[in-house]
Amino acid sequence: MSEVLDLARDLIARPSVTPDDAGCQDLVATRLQRAGFACESLRFGQVDNLWATHGSGAPVLVLLGHTDVVPPGPREAWSSDPFVPVVRGGALHGRGAADMKGSVAAFVVAAEQFVAAHPGHAGTLAVLLTSDEEGDAIEGVRRVAAVFRERGQRIDWCITGEPSSTERLGDLLRVGRRGSLSGTLRVHGVQGHVAYPHKARNPIHQAAPALAELAAREWDDGYESFPPTSFQVSNIQAGTGASNVIPGELQVLFNLRYNPHWDAPALEAEIAALLDRHGLQYDLRWHRSGEPFYTPEGRLRSVAREVLGEFAGAPPQESTGGGTSDARFIAPLGAQCIEVGPVNASIHQVDEHVSVADLEALPDLYRRLVERLLL
Amino acid sequence: MSEVLDLARDLIARPSVTPDDAGCQDLVATRLQRAGFACESLRFGQVDNLWATHGSGAPVLVLLGHTDVVPPGPREAWSSDPFVPVVRGGALHGRGAADMKGSVAAFVVAAEQFVAAHPGHAGTLAVLLTSDEEGDAIEGVRRVAAVFRERGQRIDWCITGEPSSTERLGDLLRVGRRGSLSGTLRVHGVQGHVAYPHKARNPIHQAAPALAELAAREWDDGYESFPPTSFQVSNIQAGTGASNVIPGELQVLFNLRYNPHWDAPALEAEIAALLDRHGLQYDLRWHRSGEPFYTPEGRLRSVAREVLGEFAGAPPQESTGGGTSDARFIAPLGAQCIEVGPVNASIHQVDEHVSVADLEALPDLYRRLVERLLL
Ligand SMILES: [Zn+2]
Ligand SMILES: [Zn+2]
Repeated sequence: MSEVLDLARDLIARPSVTPDDAGCQDLVATRLQRAGFACESLRFGQVDNLWATHGSGAPVLVLLGHTDVVPPGPREAWSSDPFVPVVRGGALHGRGAADMKGSVAAFVVAAEQFVAAHPGHAGTLAVLLTSDEEGDAIEGVRRVAAVFRERGQRIDWCITGEPSSTERLGDLLRVGRRGSLSGTLRVHGVQGHVAYPHKARNPIHQAAPALAELAAREWDDGYESFPPTSFQVSNIQAGTGASNVIPGELQVLFNLRYNPHWDAPALEAEIAALLDRHGLQYDLRWHRSGEPFYTPEGRLRSVAREVLGEFAGAPPQESTGGGTSDARFIAPLGAQCIEVGPVNASIHQVDEHVSVADLEALPDLYRRLVERLLL
Repeated sequence: MSEVLDLARDLIARPSVTPDDAGCQDLVATRLQRAGFACESLRFGQVDNLWATHGSGAPVLVLLGHTDVVPPGPREAWSSDPFVPVVRGGALHGRGAADMKGSVAAFVVAAEQFVAAHPGHAGTLAVLLTSDEEGDAIEGVRRVAAVFRERGQRIDWCITGEPSSTERLGDLLRVGRRGSLSGTLRVHGVQGHVAYPHKARNPIHQAAPALAELAAREWDDGYESFPPTSFQVSNIQAGTGASNVIPGELQVLFNLRYNPHWDAPALEAEIAALLDRHGLQYDLRWHRSGEPFYTPEGRLRSVAREVLGEFAGAPPQESTGGGTSDARFIAPLGAQCIEVGPVNASIHQVDEHVSVADLEALPDLYRRLVERLLL
């Protein structure tokens, strides 16, 4: 039994369904305090956040993780209890094993080893954990980043433990994520009877050319390794079911996944201008889920490329694909951000698991990253 | 108390909510048989139809009506029981007073007076009633017309008693109606996640340009006194509510109101060609609610214009507006069709009523029409 496996088991045994931390951060704080870290607990609403630092001043390297997990769904669907960690077929099973209690355990072990060996290291090594990454993500790292901004907390590098590997540990280095922006559009018309169209104004007819233009538009042709920005309507609804009534209102939900060519205000202005140009009468409510982040070539990427290559046996693929992560909140503070973690094949699914071999390699991987950045 | 008022009251007292005749046609048949008419009852499913004729051979003039009424809605909303006829403020109140038990009563009185005075009149005077005009209209005049077609029953002129007048009796002569055609369109896409649009095919995006083209299209610029053909989407729906899912299917309900430039097969072919041209994968179900009918200038219109002018004090407006009526089933037999009836302001509403003065004038109006056509 290795240290990282023990700790990962202890974390999985705490049923921290988002946003409930269920005692995970206490466990981590106790360990890090014993190793010499200063620990600060930041609780907002239902959400626990832990900020642990060792050393002082620049450069500041943050290991970023979350203790919450997505709900396991029905117990019967799992081969074993999702909150009773068990090793089976060379893999540790349990909700959060891959996303991302294994990485959090490895952070702790790597940090302990690093500060024990190099008590007078350069700059600051920090661990930042939240219990609200899988949920609304409002009281979690978003809120902590606002505190950092007020305090003038500098962050140079941020390594998130999100499960980024695709087939074997270290085969992919995530260096950015697209932004996500949603809109709820209500187009106002005038209700009426289909037999008297001149007395009505059909919001579906009004909106169709604008929707056609939005659907056909090419927003950009990608950015570095980012795919092109994309616009998708997810929901559209008008009418009461009656076939002889022209509806008075059309509702459209849409989402944009965008690369760093754009930011949310620019997209919002662009779409409003397009709707205005089509002469629509409308309300439009925006929900900004996260700006994109991108870490260009530089110290963090080159160090990570080297270290990951040592583990995977070949240089990693450098990617900006996938959804969103908490790195989106840290990047705007001026930090270079990357995501490095175990294989993600089973995350958010039943029988989530992480290979024991990968889990036991992870502390080494994170420790080598820390060494090359802070020594 | 006049004869027509008595009979209208007797009809209103029978709660013939569509398609239940509730004994109305028995009452009419008894009266017409006593006057010398041959009466034939044609019952299809729940629907009663009455075909009463006097005389023989050409020309054949049909007085067309319905004994069914739309449901009255909650009793409390009415000032008096919708099925207890009552004269109040110079008007006979009750469900069907204007649409169209008043007209049916007037048909009977006019027919009795006419055949009593002119037992050897030219051609055939017929009364055709159904109890399924306000409902599905499948087992009513549509079905009777099919029987007529089989029998080779000739019809030259058809006068429907639908409430056509707008402000005073005889101010409007309806000489046609638009056709109505509905479609249910399902556009098939491929469901997916908004973050991976290249793995999905968004049916809303696929359909938007086709809908824009359909909405913008000018189908014609009217026909005689018909307004232009119009296309209206009444309902549109796609999506499950989730904002990160590209839906797999879009459903669109639409309706066309069309003039005699078009018929249903031509419109169906036109729209299918447009959808094909946009490369959509779709299913399309059609519902033909009725072809348009139109009675051009000729004997029936000129006689009606004259007679209505005598009642209204000025020549009537000649119109093709409004919804659909059973004339659409008789017109294809080669008949000239018009609609002449009382003021329609209260039809299908609570406190439906017909002015007693208009009701008492109606038998004269219909009798004069019959006299000028069959003497
Ligand atoms: Zn995660
Ligand atoms: Zn009617």
